[in-house]
Amino acid sequence: MRVLVLGGDGFCGWPTALHLSQAGHDVTIADNLSRRFIDVELEVESLTPIRPVHERLAAWREHTGKEIRFVNLDLAREYDRVLGVLLESRPDAVVHFAEQRAAPYSMRSAKTKRYTVDNNVTGTHNLLAAIVETGLDIAVVHLGTMGVYGYGWSGSAPIPEGYLTVHVPTPEGQLEREILHPANPGSVYHMTKTLDQLLFAFYAKNDGVRVTDLHQGIVWGTQTPETAIDERLINRFDYDGDFGTVLNRFIMQAAIGHPLTVHGTGGQTRAFIHIRDTVRCIELALDDPPVRGEQVSVFNQVTETYQVRALAELVSRMTGVEIVYLPNPRKEAAENDLNVTRDRFLALGLNPTTLSEGLLEETREIGVKYASRADFSKIVAKTVWSAGMEVSPDLMR
Amino acid sequence: MRVLVLGGDGFCGWPTALHLSQAGHDVTIADNLSRRFIDVELEVESLTPIRPVHERLAAWREHTGKEIRFVNLDLAREYDRVLGVLLESRPDAVVHFAEQRAAPYSMRSAKTKRYTVDNNVTGTHNLLAAIVETGLDIAVVHLGTMGVYGYGWSGSAPIPEGYLTVHVPTPEGQLEREILHPANPGSVYHMTKTLDQLLFAFYAKNDGVRVTDLHQGIVWGTQTPETAIDERLINRFDYDGDFGTVLNRFIMQAAIGHPLTVHGTGGQTRAFIHIRDTVRCIELALDDPPVRGEQVSVFNQVTETYQVRALAELVSRMTGVEIVYLPNPRKEAAENDLNVTRDRFLALGLNPTTLSEGLLEETREIGVKYASRADFSKIVAKTVWSAGMEVSPDLMR
Repeated sequence: MRVLVLGGDGFCGWPTALHLSQAGHDVTIADNLSRRFIDVELEVESLTPIRPVHERLAAWREHTGKEIRFVNLDLAREYDRVLGVLLESRPDAVVHFAEQRAAPYSMRSAKTKRYTVDNNVTGTHNLLAAIVETGLDIAVVHLGTMGVYGYGWSGSAPIPEGYLTVHVPTPEGQLEREILHPANPGSVYHMTKTLDQLLFAFYAKNDGVRVTDLHQGIVWGTQTPETAIDERLINRFDYDGDFGTVLNRFIMQAAIGHPLTVHGTGGQTRAFIHIRDTVRCIELALDDPPVRGEQVSVFNQVTETYQVRALAELVSRMTGVEIVYLPNPRKEAAENDLNVTRDRFLALGLNPTTLSEGLLEETREIGVKYASRADFSKIVAKTVWSAGMEVSPDLMR
Repeated sequence: MRVLVLGGDGFCGWPTALHLSQAGHDVTIADNLSRRFIDVELEVESLTPIRPVHERLAAWREHTGKEIRFVNLDLAREYDRVLGVLLESRPDAVVHFAEQRAAPYSMRSAKTKRYTVDNNVTGTHNLLAAIVETGLDIAVVHLGTMGVYGYGWSGSAPIPEGYLTVHVPTPEGQLEREILHPANPGSVYHMTKTLDQLLFAFYAKNDGVRVTDLHQGIVWGTQTPETAIDERLINRFDYDGDFGTVLNRFIMQAAIGHPLTVHGTGGQTRAFIHIRDTVRCIELALDDPPVRGEQVSVFNQVTETYQVRALAELVSRMTGVEIVYLPNPRKEAAENDLNVTRDRFLALGLNPTTLSEGLLEETREIGVKYASRADFSKIVAKTVWSAGMEVSPDLMR
């Protein structure tokens, strides 16, 4: 099928584009390179030496004979060009990764809060309005987040895949209703994904746009079979306090001998998925879109859940690096359980990469191999959720 | 108290600004005059001869000795100036009307959909981010809409004021949870108010911003005691297919002898409020803000419910003008009941203006008096909710 990957130069987008191209799909990447600009702004680089997008694409062509087209496009700012790209490339599906995806970055300042809302919400709405304007039946697969649900809201009840069955008291007894799971976002970033959900629901209802929303856990790992073919194809690995995801940060900290930084008690339980499974899930979702007129199809894109503290202990045991407990810059419960339903992707045949399989390989092949590229001043998370909260000092220079 | 009225030149904003000024508050209006620009775009004018904002303010000063300041400000586009105005005027509260408020206009084209989302969501988020950036404890009173709830969702159960108590099944039995009422918006405009709700909930939780969200029914009527003091203070009256509200359209149609235009069966039940009660509700909400750290305070700002068909029959009986049934340009149920909880404003002492009291006066003092200003080509609603839906022809020239 013809697939347009919005945000196809980013951490999830790039390996997805390669995976879909390898699987025989006709892939076009659209990206405004915003993630690379933010690296410049934050004065940090991917631990892995990612190459410019055209060099990446040339290396892919050289190894596979497959062509991936690239369009430099700002989804939120260039509506007319978005419309033009859709009309010209007539994709069967759009995979939408074109959002600012770091919770800490979204909380740095009024400027980054505003950028995150504007980029993510305007971008998603532009995509939907443009699809309707084209009159084409283009399916959308969007990367959401487990964070739309919040944590600890539903007690021992497992978090369902998007929709929650509730009973509403009425004068005569009670009604049973299936509702979009109540939103309880923990940052401006997560909030934008809760807004996206309402945009999708409206355009599915009013215009029959076919949307799949994937509520993904925290991604770890770096390489997929495709990005590992040539070093020029390598995926990005973020370790800094704003964009680094928790497990990758532990892996990199262990590799350079930096204490493993746990915020608060580490009692937060989170859901995880390896980047190799992310790309498979996207492909499975593309193969199984909703029917026109149906409600938005929601999958929980997670494979395992761990307490942050337990992850740190695992990495510490494996590597001998100590754990430090720092103040929590987020406003969240100190401890939470997490029980996530994840039946839909398993039913479609996903065979997950588990932490126990992938962790050592990741530490060796990424953390240790590229350790010399680390900037120690970027490791400790500095962004706090509101003014006056304690900021942790750097632990190593 | 010092009150900043965002959108204070509009249909609800202008009479609210006067009412608050008359009540002794220190009022500043901020408005980018967007509603007047849209009149130019749609080639239509208020039936009433509204005056430029500085002439309005001079007339107010002349009659009352009271000064209302005016700032030409675009909430969605001029964040730094928004911040400057807040820091300089240090308001105790902001009343936020600065949103595109017509459902049909929001559905006209990709351009107006995008404008509505951008203006409303970016504007609301700018306000919240700016309040946090100032560090000031500024209360927000926002005009929401009954349309966030949708219609017919909860069967015979009355629509609560913002929050719904539900029971969630768990392995051990069930949990009781109070949730934001599920959103079921009927247009892009209504959708933006459901996004606003999530913005407010997040900023109340994360930053302690004190927000009151008023889910208003369809406003009818034109004048308040303050706008009636001098014709230069007159409020706007929209009768066109995009911005005219249903009852005001009937009143104007009756006054000029145009058939009363009912869309679909007229079986839609809607909630109504007179503009005189709108301004009182805003004042009551300002006097009763939530405590810092509390969840968003939600009121249903409605006083009566009517079926559209019944309204048309009422006006037809009163005036002898016939009713025509036109295709429904909206995607909505043909018929619905509506049972709305509205206890909170009644408890605060609101004494509503009912249809039976105000309708004749409105017809005589506005509809008949300004009938000669009507443009017959703007009366029939032309905007449809999606491509291919039937557009009604004009009925009179």
